[in-house]
Amino acid sequence: MRLVITGAGGFVGRALIGALIDQHEIIAVDQQLGGLTGIAGDLADPAVLDVAFARGCDAVVHLATVPGGAAEANPERAKQVNVDASMALVEAAARAGQQPRFIFASSIAVYGEPLPPLVDDSTPLAPRLLYGAHKAMMEEWIATQTRRGAISGLSLRFPGIVARPRGPSGMKSAFMSDVFHALKAGEPIELPVSPGATLWLMSVNRLVANLTHALASESTGSVTLPALRMAMTELVDAIADNMMVSPGLASYAPDPALEAGFGRQPPLATPKANSLGFRHDETLETLVSSAFATLS
Amino acid sequence: MRLVITGAGGFVGRALIGALIDQHEIIAVDQQLGGLTGIAGDLADPAVLDVAFARGCDAVVHLATVPGGAAEANPERAKQVNVDASMALVEAAARAGQQPRFIFASSIAVYGEPLPPLVDDSTPLAPRLLYGAHKAMMEEWIATQTRRGAISGLSLRFPGIVARPRGPSGMKSAFMSDVFHALKAGEPIELPVSPGATLWLMSVNRLVANLTHALASESTGSVTLPALRMAMTELVDAIADNMMVSPGLASYAPDPALEAGFGRQPPLATPKANSLGFRHDETLETLVSSAFATLS
Repeated sequence: MRLVITGAGGFVGRALIGALIDQHEIIAVDQQLGGLTGIAGDLADPAVLDVAFARGCDAVVHLATVPGGAAEANPERAKQVNVDASMALVEAAARAGQQPRFIFASSIAVYGEPLPPLVDDSTPLAPRLLYGAHKAMMEEWIATQTRRGAISGLSLRFPGIVARPRGPSGMKSAFMSDVFHALKAGEPIELPVSPGATLWLMSVNRLVANLTHALASESTGSVTLPALRMAMTELVDAIADNMMVSPGLASYAPDPALEAGFGRQPPLATPKANSLGFRHDETLETLVSSAFATLS
Repeated sequence: MRLVITGAGGFVGRALIGALIDQHEIIAVDQQLGGLTGIAGDLADPAVLDVAFARGCDAVVHLATVPGGAAEANPERAKQVNVDASMALVEAAARAGQQPRFIFASSIAVYGEPLPPLVDDSTPLAPRLLYGAHKAMMEEWIATQTRRGAISGLSLRFPGIVARPRGPSGMKSAFMSDVFHALKAGEPIELPVSPGATLWLMSVNRLVANLTHALASESTGSVTLPALRMAMTELVDAIADNMMVSPGLASYAPDPALEAGFGRQPPLATPKANSLGFRHDETLETLVSSAFATLS
């Protein structure tokens, strides 16, 4: 299978390529490939799409995005990547292949906040972030192009994915990953949510397994991925246990906006995803050890 | 109230301006104003938006669009107007006013085809036309910007509006209006749907009343407007009665695509619109005489 992966140089992209490179021809696209072989360039540049699809394609995994915080800081650039380049990518894929498989990295940001007491497959989309609106708009475009027979599209709504590398990612949810790094290093960390904040998380390895499953399946439409739900203190305790450090390294200084956006995640029911074979990490211990297995 | 109207030179725009000009300051924007006083230019040109909003605004009615058939013929131009310029219009309005009222002309095209046996407020969006996808995406953007407090947005999904002027409109549904013109002139017309084809229609006068109501109300979100539903032969008979000509002037040569897209409209329930005070034409006779009252 010839597979175009955007955002290939990022955290999820690199892990996905690691899992697929032995069995598939990967065309990696990103602004910075960080040592990967591929096409280094801006997805918003039509020439980059031309090169990426020059030899045809069987499938696309579209991970590239301007995430929540970065999108709020630069709405024009966010629209250019999250809407314009993403729409053009769908069309380029449709031209290059025979109804190619198209897996789109959407986000739970499409649900907005505050969330209802339970989120399930019937929860209406109500984004508040520009990023969430862009994702919802692209889900609509991908579903339409799938109904038209141009692609075989599936939008997967990602929960928080851990543990991302340290450093500026433009993601408002960076603290969910930073806590892994800090406790591993035995360093204190001040978390911008309350101890009782509730989170939806998935390890990157589990996400890669879900993406691989999505590529091989034929389901279309939009699917909210299952996620483990936990309180911030439960996550801290599990990480501290795994690293044999004190959970007291973590302190709490809730930021109202981050608490509202990422710390009030209610029970999540994903019967559609479950029936299609998508899975969460099963236990918090598995999630933590899986996250540490890929920590860089 | 200072009111910016896009697509002002079009069929709906002119009728709306006629109804509002005595009580409001209208800033009419269109590529061709056809004698109206206003700003003649392309909505996709940022300078046009700058001029339109230079003195602030209290409300916008966004009618300008590249409709169904024209969008399929020129997808790039359609995306430029229906998505890019429309998103920019929302932002320009937000900058120019204090949470200005923003009424967006959406379409029943967001439901796609084939339609389910009943369409109601819980029917999922499933556009097939690029135009319908663009409308669904803009509904999402307007709802997000409303949740963010930037505008007070309401998307109204229009049924077929009659009777449009004769001539190329880029609308696949032009036959719904052409039948008024032909029978008024006592001319034969070949209709591209079957006699039993079912349509959702509203007269332009009724639409103008609904738009005026929308401007004065505070409801937000997306609303499917009520419509009268009739068979093609019932419409032909009512027009022929009104004009005192023979319904035999109409013949039928169904085009499968037009029949599927416009002739299979099932019963329509619009409790949300009804409760907000939106109305259809009440009777077919009223719809026909109202349509003839504005025929040009």
